[in-house]
Amino acid sequence: MCPSCTPFFSILFTLMTIITLLTDFGLQDGYVGIMKGVIWGIAPGVQIADISHAVKAQDILQGALTLRRAVPYFPARTVHVAVVDPGVGTSRRELAGRLGGQYFVGPDNGLFSLVLEQAEAQGEVVEWVHLTRGEYWLPQVTAVFHGRDIFAPVAAHLANGVPLNTLGEPVYDPVRLRLPQPQREAEGWSAQVMHIDHFGNLATNLGRDQIGPAQSIVIRIKGVEIQGIVQAYGGELPGEMVALFDSSDLLSIAIVNGNAAQMLQATIGDPVEVAITPNPSA
Amino acid sequence: MCPSCTPFFSILFTLMTIITLLTDFGLQDGYVGIMKGVIWGIAPGVQIADISHAVKAQDILQGALTLRRAVPYFPARTVHVAVVDPGVGTSRRELAGRLGGQYFVGPDNGLFSLVLEQAEAQGEVVEWVHLTRGEYWLPQVTAVFHGRDIFAPVAAHLANGVPLNTLGEPVYDPVRLRLPQPQREAEGWSAQVMHIDHFGNLATNLGRDQIGPAQSIVIRIKGVEIQGIVQAYGGELPGEMVALFDSSDLLSIAIVNGNAAQMLQATIGDPVEVAITPNPSA
Amino acid sequence: MCPSCTPFFSILFTLMTIITLLTDFGLQDGYVGIMKGVIWGIAPGVQIADISHAVKAQDILQGALTLRRAVPYFPARTVHVAVVDPGVGTSRRELAGRLGGQYFVGPDNGLFSLVLEQAEAQGEVVEWVHLTRGEYWLPQVTAVFHGRDIFAPVAAHLANGVPLNTLGEPVYDPVRLRLPQPQREAEGWSAQVMHIDHFGNLATNLGRDQIGPAQSIVIRIKGVEIQGIVQAYGGELPGEMVALFDSSDLLSIAIVNGNAAQMLQATIGDPVEVAITPNPSA
Repeated sequence: MCPSCTPFFSILFTLMTIITLLTDFGLQDGYVGIMKGVIWGIAPGVQIADISHAVKAQDILQGALTLRRAVPYFPARTVHVAVVDPGVGTSRRELAGRLGGQYFVGPDNGLFSLVLEQAEAQGEVVEWVHLTRGEYWLPQVTAVFHGRDIFAPVAAHLANGVPLNTLGEPVYDPVRLRLPQPQREAEGWSAQVMHIDHFGNLATNLGRDQIGPAQSIVIRIKGVEIQGIVQAYGGELPGEMVALFDSSDLLSIAIVNGNAAQMLQATIGDPVEVAITPNPSA
Repeated sequence: MCPSCTPFFSILFTLMTIITLLTDFGLQDGYVGIMKGVIWGIAPGVQIADISHAVKAQDILQGALTLRRAVPYFPARTVHVAVVDPGVGTSRRELAGRLGGQYFVGPDNGLFSLVLEQAEAQGEVVEWVHLTRGEYWLPQVTAVFHGRDIFAPVAAHLANGVPLNTLGEPVYDPVRLRLPQPQREAEGWSAQVMHIDHFGNLATNLGRDQIGPAQSIVIRIKGVEIQGIVQAYGGELPGEMVALFDSSDLLSIAIVNGNAAQMLQATIGDPVEVAITPNPSA
Repeated sequence: MCPSCTPFFSILFTLMTIITLLTDFGLQDGYVGIMKGVIWGIAPGVQIADISHAVKAQDILQGALTLRRAVPYFPARTVHVAVVDPGVGTSRRELAGRLGGQYFVGPDNGLFSLVLEQAEAQGEVVEWVHLTRGEYWLPQVTAVFHGRDIFAPVAAHLANGVPLNTLGEPVYDPVRLRLPQPQREAEGWSAQVMHIDHFGNLATNLGRDQIGPAQSIVIRIKGVEIQGIVQAYGGELPGEMVALFDSSDLLSIAIVNGNAAQMLQATIGDPVEVAITPNPSA
């Protein structure tokens, strides 16, 4: 071992660490770039990935869903900063937490409740703190931009290896969102549209596991009926409406090479009826 | 040489390697961020550049043009991931390839055919493989998101130095797009609009080399006539319509400080007539 | 010290250096990705942050304001590349400069005048050069894309440690924008809307310091009257219009969980009247 090289190992460690950013800030004003400047001022060279900055303004549920979609694909030690924060500067708490091997920083308003549920379902270690130790924040903290003043610096300190429990006091009751659940019906499920993506694909809240093996399946949305589930977006002719399981294994409605949301005039919350004829061998 | 430092050299090597991403995914849903998580899980600290995620959904030709514009400006060893992939999950092949010193990963649907043409024209080494070796993919592969499940991990392994030919079987017939070519006419060229950029500038498919030296030149588009070619966007008064060679040396139509596409109601494919009076000395 | 490791220290140095990009290029065409390719070809592994690429086309003032908002949050040695450049290819000069500990590269059209003012107000060292040394540019320079051909390579060389004064000749008169100033009135201030952000919040040109301590304050904009200043966006009921100091300490008008710009049909330049009843103890 080269003794005088030791400091460089900790630099390399930071250079291989990831911080992600998820906000409703948009990309026009430089707010996201500012957070990166703050982060790199504290943790030089850390890798930063944008998850999304196009969460609808103040839409905590959409932020929580986007975070749940992304988190499983990041390696251990990643620090996720999420800021959809209508209550910034009010009495809502500032949080940092650990779910299994990954870290989370942001407001206590339910934004983390879906990744928390996922971690609990998998029996992972869960730990939260209320951020109260100002020495890990910017020297000046406003009541309007905690993403810059509190969350970005705390994330950078976590990336540098500062232990979670030195950042504040333990919290055992983070705010949880109530996500609409699909309802079991006599003939199948009553679900709803939960997310409309860039392609206009309509993801429901009904998972592949809930549907299980089926002899036949009929999906009804906005007066349109879809027979059966295909494997791939390109599985039918262009313009055809299809149902399939999306990349998060949720039942989705799409149009081959088209935009289902536009064609159906669909919005989040629209009901989706799923009639299932069970597999006789099941 | 510090023998115990050797592992750190390979880390530094990865930290200086580049992966680029070009997709039609948009930036709202976190799909691009997810690909970065997958990449960094395999190649920690590799540098990632977004080329564009605003390719029109399923528009392979626009993706191919954007890639051709960008690739010459990246250094050797860059790995370019491009995913405009209406056939994901169908029988279309998954590809990785090498064109000269750079690598390419994505679907076999013509997306790479323009950079391939360019490499062939320059006599560069060309090599393609059909990705068949699942040990270089995510453990679970869906039929709907190969960008995440196959292309991102393969790119990360290439960045780590895994040889191309270990990733699959050789391919000698990648799909090629037929790009509309400008037609030689008695009085000049009959070209068309191929790309409309963020500023509303209209790039044609006619290059500086094809026009050659000319005594005078007249460009006609949508009933408007432009005399001569200027050097720079700011070369005339604001509001003036000008013709010039763009940053890829393609004949383009622009409005000084304005938006030519909006003013002319121009779209991709619109004809552009170019009348040339040859230089007598030529 | 491990003597054979010395070259790796300079690599680590670059890996911890930051280059930022601010342009009006949009994200669709790959122009920004191309600049990153050029940068990494010269300064491998340098960290690159996007400030904004959604500056309105050719809007130098908006670019200057966005830069002023972001720069204070970046560490020393950061190199900021800003390209809002209607005069590219004309006689306007190409600049690089140093303001205190940070570097700036871009066209000499006023884009840097607000960060320059800020640096002068703080008594920082100020130095500018006209970029004339072509050996620090790409080998081929067009008249249409200096961001790629001149500014990106120069920024990369600065990040590598090339001294500013080797890049060109000293400049003492960079172009300065005249920013509209709020006017002192008998009863308070006559200000105006200077920036409308992604949330539709309306930032004025009137700072917290200028208002000072007040017993009461009334803000009038587009026929609407707001009493007093709140601390936080979430300080009143959703839908309420509020005035507050934004994250740059500028007086701003916002709607709790809403979009003030849309509701008021406000645009940049709209007058904002501020009536102040001074604090009797002041």
